[in-house]
Amino acid sequence: MDKKKIGIIGATGYTGSELMRILPQHPHVEVTTITSESRAGEKFSEVHPFFEGIADQVLIKSDAINVKDLDLVFLALPHGISMDFVKQYHGEKFKIIDLSGDFRLESPDIYKKWYLKDHSFHEGFAEAVYGIPELFSKEIKSARLIANPGCFPTGALLGMAPLAAEGLRLEAPIIIDSKTGVTGAGVQSKPVNLFSNVHDNFKAYGLKSHRHTIEIQDTLKKISGANVTIQFTPHLLPVDRGILSTIYLQPSKKNWSDKSLVALFEDFYQEAPFVRIRKQPPAIKEVRGTNYCDIFPVFDDRTGMVIVITAIDNLVKGAAGQAVQNMNLIFDWDETQGLNQIPVHP
Amino acid sequence: MDKKKIGIIGATGYTGSELMRILPQHPHVEVTTITSESRAGEKFSEVHPFFEGIADQVLIKSDAINVKDLDLVFLALPHGISMDFVKQYHGEKFKIIDLSGDFRLESPDIYKKWYLKDHSFHEGFAEAVYGIPELFSKEIKSARLIANPGCFPTGALLGMAPLAAEGLRLEAPIIIDSKTGVTGAGVQSKPVNLFSNVHDNFKAYGLKSHRHTIEIQDTLKKISGANVTIQFTPHLLPVDRGILSTIYLQPSKKNWSDKSLVALFEDFYQEAPFVRIRKQPPAIKEVRGTNYCDIFPVFDDRTGMVIVITAIDNLVKGAAGQAVQNMNLIFDWDETQGLNQIPVHP
Amino acid sequence: MDKKKIGIIGATGYTGSELMRILPQHPHVEVTTITSESRAGEKFSEVHPFFEGIADQVLIKSDAINVKDLDLVFLALPHGISMDFVKQYHGEKFKIIDLSGDFRLESPDIYKKWYLKDHSFHEGFAEAVYGIPELFSKEIKSARLIANPGCFPTGALLGMAPLAAEGLRLEAPIIIDSKTGVTGAGVQSKPVNLFSNVHDNFKAYGLKSHRHTIEIQDTLKKISGANVTIQFTPHLLPVDRGILSTIYLQPSKKNWSDKSLVALFEDFYQEAPFVRIRKQPPAIKEVRGTNYCDIFPVFDDRTGMVIVITAIDNLVKGAAGQAVQNMNLIFDWDETQGLNQIPVHP
Amino acid sequence: MDKKKIGIIGATGYTGSELMRILPQHPHVEVTTITSESRAGEKFSEVHPFFEGIADQVLIKSDAINVKDLDLVFLALPHGISMDFVKQYHGEKFKIIDLSGDFRLESPDIYKKWYLKDHSFHEGFAEAVYGIPELFSKEIKSARLIANPGCFPTGALLGMAPLAAEGLRLEAPIIIDSKTGVTGAGVQSKPVNLFSNVHDNFKAYGLKSHRHTIEIQDTLKKISGANVTIQFTPHLLPVDRGILSTIYLQPSKKNWSDKSLVALFEDFYQEAPFVRIRKQPPAIKEVRGTNYCDIFPVFDDRTGMVIVITAIDNLVKGAAGQAVQNMNLIFDWDETQGLNQIPVHP
Repeated sequence: MDKKKIGIIGATGYTGSELMRILPQHPHVEVTTITSESRAGEKFSEVHPFFEGIADQVLIKSDAINVKDLDLVFLALPHGISMDFVKQYHGEKFKIIDLSGDFRLESPDIYKKWYLKDHSFHEGFAEAVYGIPELFSKEIKSARLIANPGCFPTGALLGMAPLAAEGLRLEAPIIIDSKTGVTGAGVQSKPVNLFSNVHDNFKAYGLKSHRHTIEIQDTLKKISGANVTIQFTPHLLPVDRGILSTIYLQPSKKNWSDKSLVALFEDFYQEAPFVRIRKQPPAIKEVRGTNYCDIFPVFDDRTGMVIVITAIDNLVKGAAGQAVQNMNLIFDWDETQGLNQIPVHP
Repeated sequence: MDKKKIGIIGATGYTGSELMRILPQHPHVEVTTITSESRAGEKFSEVHPFFEGIADQVLIKSDAINVKDLDLVFLALPHGISMDFVKQYHGEKFKIIDLSGDFRLESPDIYKKWYLKDHSFHEGFAEAVYGIPELFSKEIKSARLIANPGCFPTGALLGMAPLAAEGLRLEAPIIIDSKTGVTGAGVQSKPVNLFSNVHDNFKAYGLKSHRHTIEIQDTLKKISGANVTIQFTPHLLPVDRGILSTIYLQPSKKNWSDKSLVALFEDFYQEAPFVRIRKQPPAIKEVRGTNYCDIFPVFDDRTGMVIVITAIDNLVKGAAGQAVQNMNLIFDWDETQGLNQIPVHP
Repeated sequence: MDKKKIGIIGATGYTGSELMRILPQHPHVEVTTITSESRAGEKFSEVHPFFEGIADQVLIKSDAINVKDLDLVFLALPHGISMDFVKQYHGEKFKIIDLSGDFRLESPDIYKKWYLKDHSFHEGFAEAVYGIPELFSKEIKSARLIANPGCFPTGALLGMAPLAAEGLRLEAPIIIDSKTGVTGAGVQSKPVNLFSNVHDNFKAYGLKSHRHTIEIQDTLKKISGANVTIQFTPHLLPVDRGILSTIYLQPSKKNWSDKSLVALFEDFYQEAPFVRIRKQPPAIKEVRGTNYCDIFPVFDDRTGMVIVITAIDNLVKGAAGQAVQNMNLIFDWDETQGLNQIPVHP
Repeated sequence: MDKKKIGIIGATGYTGSELMRILPQHPHVEVTTITSESRAGEKFSEVHPFFEGIADQVLIKSDAINVKDLDLVFLALPHGISMDFVKQYHGEKFKIIDLSGDFRLESPDIYKKWYLKDHSFHEGFAEAVYGIPELFSKEIKSARLIANPGCFPTGALLGMAPLAAEGLRLEAPIIIDSKTGVTGAGVQSKPVNLFSNVHDNFKAYGLKSHRHTIEIQDTLKKISGANVTIQFTPHLLPVDRGILSTIYLQPSKKNWSDKSLVALFEDFYQEAPFVRIRKQPPAIKEVRGTNYCDIFPVFDDRTGMVIVITAIDNLVKGAAGQAVQNMNLIFDWDETQGLNQIPVHP
C-alpha cells in the first residue's frame, strides 16, 4: 500500500510536536510537509532538539506547500487562525483535521458569543464533523473536515456518553471539575506557564466563562436529547500532561449501583479500544503518552449522586492521538494504527 | 509575663514538626516537653535534620512527662490513639488541643460509623469544642479540650460559613471537590506517598467514604440549622502542602451577584485576621507556610450556582497554625501571635 | 520467524515493568513467563494498574517456570539475589541478561569489597560479558551471560570511551558528578523516595562509597589501558527518570578544541544508533522513555579541562532498554528492534 | 530606637519580593519606598497577590523617591542597570546594598571581559565592599556601598573559605559543580523558565563562560593568596529555590581526614550564626526560606580529594537574606535580626 502523504500546518507547538511523535509509528503514512511561519527554514529538530536524528526535516511557510500532493492535513493552529486555512483549502481534495476550536460549535453565532470573535468561514460549520470516534464514528468515516474535539470536552463527554445515550434526566446542573496539565496553555512563555507560578502550586481559572463549557453542553444535548446545563471549572495542575475530570450528576433515577453503572459503561464501550473502565480511580500518569481514556463511575447511595472520573493525556487522546484515530477512521484503517503506545510510568 | 509551658505529644510527624516551626516564633510560650515513642532519647534535630541548631531538645516517652508542669498540651497523634491520652489526662489542669479526629464529631456512634472503631472515651465529646476560631471563638475561649478541625473541613467550612449563617436553602447536595498536598497522608513511607506515584500525577481517593464528609456536614448543619448533604471528593496533588477546595452550591435564591457575595463574605469575616476575600482565584502557593485562608466566591448567572474556592496550607491553617490560633484564644492573647508568617513564594 | 520466548524473573520492580513496556513493541519476541515471589498468582496489571488491558498475564513463582521453554531470561532482581539464579541456571541452554550488579566487576574479591557481601557463584565472572553494546558488541554477540551495566556507569562510560580508546593521559583523578531520578532507588516505599523528601529538593548521597565507582573505574581501565582514578558523586533529582553526568577530565594534552573533541566523538560513535553527539548541553527530558545516550563534549581553553555531559533514561538505556539492545545483538537482530521510542516531551 | 527608613529600588522581581518578605520581620526598619518602572502606581500586592493584606503599599517610579529621607537603599536591579543608580546616588548619605553583579569584580576591565559591557561608574569599584559577612565583616561594617555577592559564589566561597584561609596548595583546578533552582533565572517569562522545559528535567548551562566563575576565582585568590583556577558548571534544577554546590579540591597535603576537616570548618565558623557544619550531606529543602548555609566537608582517602557540599536558599543567603545580614552589620545590629526564619519543610 502506498503511504498517505500528510501535512502538518503549524507544526512547532505542543500539538504539532506530538503529531510528529506519533505519526512515525504509523505504518501507512508519511509526513511530507510541515509548516511554521516563524521558524520556516529551520529543521524541526532545531526547534525541538529532542527530535535530533529523528525528525530533521525542514519547516516551510504554509504558503509554500503543494496542496495537490497531500492526502490529509492536520491544522495544529490556534483558534481564530485555523478558520482561514479551512476557508482557503475549501474545494481541495485532501482531508482536513482541524485541532483548533474553530468548527466545534453549532453555529457562527455561538462561536462569536464564547470566542468573542467573528467567524470568517460560516460554510464550514455544515461540513465539519465533531471527531470523537467512540461517539461519532459513522459521520467521521465519511467526513472531509473533522473538528477535533477540545481536550476537556473529550474526557468529559466520554465520561457522560453512556448515561446521555439513555437520556439524561437530572435534578441539577452537571458539575465538571477538571484539572489539567500545563501543556494545555501552549508552548509560548507567559506568566501562566512560568515554572515558579505552576510548580508546587494549584489554582482554578476560567470560572464561568471557559469555552469548553459550551462545547460540552451542546454535544451532550445532541447525544442525550435532553436540555442539560454544565457548570465547568478548570484548574491548573503542576504537571506537564493529563486531564482528570470529576463529574457530578444528580439523576432522577435513584436505583443505580456501582455495579449497574459499570455494566452500563462496559457495554457502551465494548468496541472502543481506547476506553478502559477502571476498577479504581484512574490517575493521569496511568495514561501518560497514550490514547487511552480511563473511566471510573460510581454511585453514592447516601447522596443519590453519580460521580464519574475520567483521565486522559491532553496531548494524545485530548489532541494529537485522537486526531490520528480520526484519520484512521477516515482512511478505513484499524482504529489503533500508530496508537499502541504504552503508558510511560513512572 | 511568664511564658506558658507547652508540651507536644507525638512531635515527630508533620503536624508536630510544624508546631516546632511555629511555636519558637511565639513570644509567650516555651516548648518544654516533646514526646515520641519510637524516637525517644534522640534529639528532635536528629529526626528532622533541618532543625539542627534550631531545635536540639531531646524527645522523651509520653509516660515520662510531668503533667503538673504543663499549661497546655498539643496532641499531634493519629486518630484512635489520641482518645486514650485525652482519657488519661482527664482531670488534669492543663488545656488540651487535640489535632486528631477523635473528638470532632457529634457522638461516639457517629464516630464509630465513619472511623470504623469504638471510641474509648465517650465523656470527651461533651467537653470538646470544635476549634475554628473564626466561627466558634466564644466557646473556644472557655474550653479545656479543643478538637482541632480536620484540614479539609477547615477550608470547606470557612468557604460556606457566611452562606450557612443566613440559612442554606439549597436545591441540591453541596459538592466539595478538594485537592490536597501529600503531607496530608503523613510522614510514614507507603505507596500512596512514594515520589514516583505522586509526582507528575493526580488522582481522586476516598470517594463516598472520606471521614471529613461527616465532619463538614454536621458542622454545617450546626451553623446553618439546615439539613444539608455533602458530596465530598478529595484528590491528591503532586505538591507538599496546600488544600484547594472548589465548592458548588445550588441556592434557591437566584438573585446573587459576584458583588453581593463578596459583600456577604467581607462582612462576615471583617474581624478575621487570617481570612482574605480574594479578587481572583487563590492559589495554594499564595498561602504556603501561613495561617491564611483565602476565599473566592462567585455566582454564575447562567447556571444559578454559587461557586466558592478556598485555599489553605493544610499543615498550618489546616492543623498546627489553627491549633496555635486556638491556643491564643484560650490564653486570651492576640489571635495572630506567632502566626505572622508571610507566604514563601515562590 | 518464530518468536523467541522470553522470561522475566522479578517482573514487578521498575526494571521489570520497563521491560514489559518495551518488549511488546519488539516484533521477534514473546514474553511467556513473568515471575514474582510476593505477587505470584496476581495479574501483572493488578500490580501495575496502568497495564490494564495491555499486560494481564499472571505472575508465577520463579520455581514454577519451565526453563526448557525459554530462549532468554532477563533477571530483574536485586544484587545479591541474582547470583543465585545465575548459579541455578548454570548449564541451561537459554541466554541470561542479568540486570543486577552481581557479575559486572572483575572478581569475587572486588565484589566483596564494594558490595560488602560474599559472592555465591565465582564461576560466573569468567562467563559474564559486560553489556555496553557500543563498546563490547563482539563479545556480547557470543555471550551466554550478560552483566547488564549499572545506570550511572552506562552514561559515564559512554561519555569517556572515545577518549579512553586513545589512552587516557590525565593529570588528576576524573570527577564524575552525577544526578539521577528517583526510580534508581527502586519501587519499595522508604524515606529516600518519599515524595516530601524528594520533591522540590536535591542532595548528594553515597559519597566516596557508591558501588558504581569501581564499575566505572575498572571498565575504564580495561578500555584505556591506563591507570585511572574515579571520584564519583551521585545526587538525587526530584524527577522520576533520567541520569545526567557531568564529567571533568584534566588531560595532559592541551591542544584540544570543542571541534576536535566533537570530531573524535562523532567518529567513535558513527555506527552507534543510540548515541547522539549534541550541539548543546543535553537535558534528561530529551531522552525520556528512549534508549538514547546524548553526549556533549567541550574543552575549556582557560583551564585546560575536558568536560563531557551525558544524559540517559536510567530505566531504558540505563537498564531495560540496554538489556533489549543486548538481546538484539545476541540473537543477531537489528540493534534497534523494539527500541524506536521517541522522547515523550514534555 | 527610631526605625531606619529603607528603600527598595526595583521591588517587583524575586529578590525585591524576598526583601519584602524578610524586612517586615525586622524590628528596626521600615520600608518607606518601593519602586518599579513598569508597575509604578500599582500596589505591591497587585503585582504579587500573595502579599494582599500584607504589603499593600504603592510602587513609585525611581525618579520620584526622596533620597534625603532614606537611611539605606537596596538595589534589586539587573546588572548593567544598577551601576547607573550607584553613580547617580554618589555623594548621598544613605547606604547602598547593590544586589546586582555590577561592583563585585576587581576592576572595570575584568567586568567588561565577563559581562561583555562597558562599566559606567569606574569609581564605584574602589568604594564597594564584597558583602559576605562571614568573611568580610570588618570591611562591611564601615562600608557605604556593598556589592552583595552572587548566589553561586556565596555557597561556593563559604565552602572553601576555611581551606583558603590557610592557603590553598592544590594539584589541579577546583571543580565547582552547582545546581540551582529556577528563581535564579528571574521573574520574566522565557523558554528557560517555562514550566514544561524545567519540570521533570535537568540540564547544564553556561559552561565555561558563567560570570560567577570570575567572581569566585578572584575572591578566592584574595582570601587564600594562592593562584587558583576555577572550573564552574551550573545546572538547572526543577525546583523554585536553592543552590547545592559540590566542590572538588585536590590538595597537595594528603593527611586530611573527615574529622580534621570538620574541625577546621567548625573552628572557622564558630562565630557564624548562619553556617551549619552538617553531619550528613545537606539538602536544599533543609535551608528553604532561611539564611542558612549548610556545609558538609569530606576527605576521600582513596583519591586524595576533598569534597565540600554546600546548600543555600539562593533568594535568601544567596541574595535578600545576605543583604539584610549586611545591613545588620552596617547599622551595628545583631547579625541575625529579621533572619530567624525556620526552614519550611516539607
